[in-house]
Amino acid sequence: MKLQLSCDLLSIDEAQKLIEETIESVDIIEMGTPFILKNGLQVVKIFKEQFPEKTILADMKIMDGGYEEAQMAFESGADIVTVLAVASINTIQKVIQCCRKYNRQVMVDMIEVVDIKKRVELLDTLDPDYICVHTAVDNQLYDNPLAELALIKSLRPSAKIAVAGGIKLETIDDVIGEKPDIIIVGGGIVKASSPGTTARAIKNKILSAV
Amino acid sequence: MKLQLSCDLLSIDEAQKLIEETIESVDIIEMGTPFILKNGLQVVKIFKEQFPEKTILADMKIMDGGYEEAQMAFESGADIVTVLAVASINTIQKVIQCCRKYNRQVMVDMIEVVDIKKRVELLDTLDPDYICVHTAVDNQLYDNPLAELALIKSLRPSAKIAVAGGIKLETIDDVIGEKPDIIIVGGGIVKASSPGTTARAIKNKILSAV
Repeated sequence: MKLQLSCDLLSIDEAQKLIEETIESVDIIEMGTPFILKNGLQVVKIFKEQFPEKTILADMKIMDGGYEEAQMAFESGADIVTVLAVASINTIQKVIQCCRKYNRQVMVDMIEVVDIKKRVELLDTLDPDYICVHTAVDNQLYDNPLAELALIKSLRPSAKIAVAGGIKLETIDDVIGEKPDIIIVGGGIVKASSPGTTARAIKNKILSAV
Repeated sequence: MKLQLSCDLLSIDEAQKLIEETIESVDIIEMGTPFILKNGLQVVKIFKEQFPEKTILADMKIMDGGYEEAQMAFESGADIVTVLAVASINTIQKVIQCCRKYNRQVMVDMIEVVDIKKRVELLDTLDPDYICVHTAVDNQLYDNPLAELALIKSLRPSAKIAVAGGIKLETIDDVIGEKPDIIIVGGGIVKASSPGTTARAIKNKILSAV
């Protein structure tokens, strides 16, 4: 079970400071969608060069131009790229094709998929590296991703699953209980009074559960 | 009927050259999704400063964090921002709320919406400025957007509609025949042997149809 830290609404300097404070606890550094949109893919290059031993995920949320957008991320140094599960199957296929070419990985983000069962069955034939169960930030008052996680696990027990959506130290035990492969935390660490201490506490809980 | 030129897989210098060549024919300059992902939102700022009289659209394809991502684009100088129609209604609402605050506009991109009728009815209550009928680049071998355009016009005759997806000089007459409010051309101009001449030819066809 790995810990992924997402950097979203931060400046490059703030992200730098955050990552330095938390790096010993973090397995995957996520360059979040707004972070990439604001600063461009240079951020992937900057942080991959600085932390070459860590996995860098570029949360591109690809919706079209699958091959070309994935390629841009991989050429910037990304290890994992995300594509939206609501994208067309052709787009998802092209992202996966690019991943195989570059020998990197793809995470399919299930955000806003209505018919989970049908989409997981379709994805099954494409064999993505990870499926990400994801409650939108804009919906976190209403939903949480754990029911969907359990559903996907039951549909595809061999799938590697990531989970995201408002996870923090106070709620981590329930998430760990569902045994995802990757737990994604953003605000739960970024907005903590001491990000380093909180990341360590979350990581310790993960380690003691494995 | 306006002409929107999308800059996607270009360097900033290439986009600069392209826009200078075509600017007299173009109403809306689109900073395409891969162009923003690669270079960051600085491109919106650069081109808005250089062409203040033109409308700049940031094709953010927002899927989450609606307010924050729209705000980033508007603070960079964008006049129009895009949100995915497959995003949650909360996200679309937050993008529109941000648009109203900044007195800018929102285009809802229908790419990969399965139930067009249901989604258009939902969008109706939110009153977005534009609905964009859009065939994914990765699907242009199989589909074209005109049937969907006619469907949306019939469902919501008052809607302002943009259309995108493999449109070029050779196919523009059929598109114009459907009377969209904005025609979006990318490769059809970018890959032409003379982008300036092709943009002018497309613009002349639009002007003579109005």
